[in-house]
Amino acid sequence: MKFEERTLSTEQIFTGKIISVQVDEVELPDGKLAKRELVKHPGAVAIIALTEDKKIVLVEQYRKPLERTMLEIPAGKIEPGEEPKLTAIRELEEETGYRAHSFEYLQTFSTSPGFADEIIHLYVAKELEKVEQPAVGDEDEFIDVLEVTVEEAEEFIANERIYDAKTVAAVWYVKNL
Amino acid sequence: MKFEERTLSTEQIFTGKIISVQVDEVELPDGKLAKRELVKHPGAVAIIALTEDKKIVLVEQYRKPLERTMLEIPAGKIEPGEEPKLTAIRELEEETGYRAHSFEYLQTFSTSPGFADEIIHLYVAKELEKVEQPAVGDEDEFIDVLEVTVEEAEEFIANERIYDAKTVAAVWYVKNL
Repeated sequence: MKFEERTLSTEQIFTGKIISVQVDEVELPDGKLAKRELVKHPGAVAIIALTEDKKIVLVEQYRKPLERTMLEIPAGKIEPGEEPKLTAIRELEEETGYRAHSFEYLQTFSTSPGFADEIIHLYVAKELEKVEQPAVGDEDEFIDVLEVTVEEAEEFIANERIYDAKTVAAVWYVKNL
Repeated sequence: MKFEERTLSTEQIFTGKIISVQVDEVELPDGKLAKRELVKHPGAVAIIALTEDKKIVLVEQYRKPLERTMLEIPAGKIEPGEEPKLTAIRELEEETGYRAHSFEYLQTFSTSPGFADEIIHLYVAKELEKVEQPAVGDEDEFIDVLEVTVEEAEEFIANERIYDAKTVAAVWYVKNL
């Protein structure tokens, strides 16, 4: 493949519960050597959930890396062996209490291609129905749910209450609908 | 702040050239304890550069974490002490050979709020002019440049040659213009 960086050696730095970290030594296309610091992540899903009146379902939670709460579309890590669409259906129910009668794959993208292999599989959920007794999610997640118009979401982007790439992308996607 | 996770202790795991990694023990809003694996990153900029006929300038480069090349809007890390807008002007010239007579801030967003503090400052560059002798960028970057219509960019999203969140967001943004 063009510009390929051939791996000469891998040094394992850290193996955590969610991420692991390694440093690879690579050979560049011109034969020179370079180091690459790499974060491995199991991958995630995110869901653009739209109500009948085209409101976007958002969840608010604290994000320790940024030391703040933010408004995001529902999302979650893929469990080992789990089919991404099932992760997405599960996370939507756990985080919002919604099940969707229409659940379509939209797109996959990398979040931080410079240093991490995390990818997000993005789905669009419509025809939402509140579940009487929704499945319970991670016990260390504290989440608020709200439903906003695309105009309100754009205001949240402008004032940075929405502050992550997948949710910004989602709002700009919905605006095109 | 709502749902705040109070840091009880920090264990430094790795200090690299680009990222560092730490594990924090936090106290959750209900008093329980949890671990947070955190990647620290200096932050980056990205540029939606539009030609006179509204084509989007993309760069193709190899991304080691994904082991593939992808088409992205120009982007780069912020150097210590560097003002993000200057980083963006510098990266646009280094990666594409363009200088812009109109260079506007658009938005900042986090790329992976679950585990990393990386943020990207996004700019829109217009009235582009090719520089005779552009500044030279990182010596270990190998880059191709191309200019595509928003329709071509959407095809690249569909066939996953565009495969990262900032560029997907950028294309959906331009489609709304």
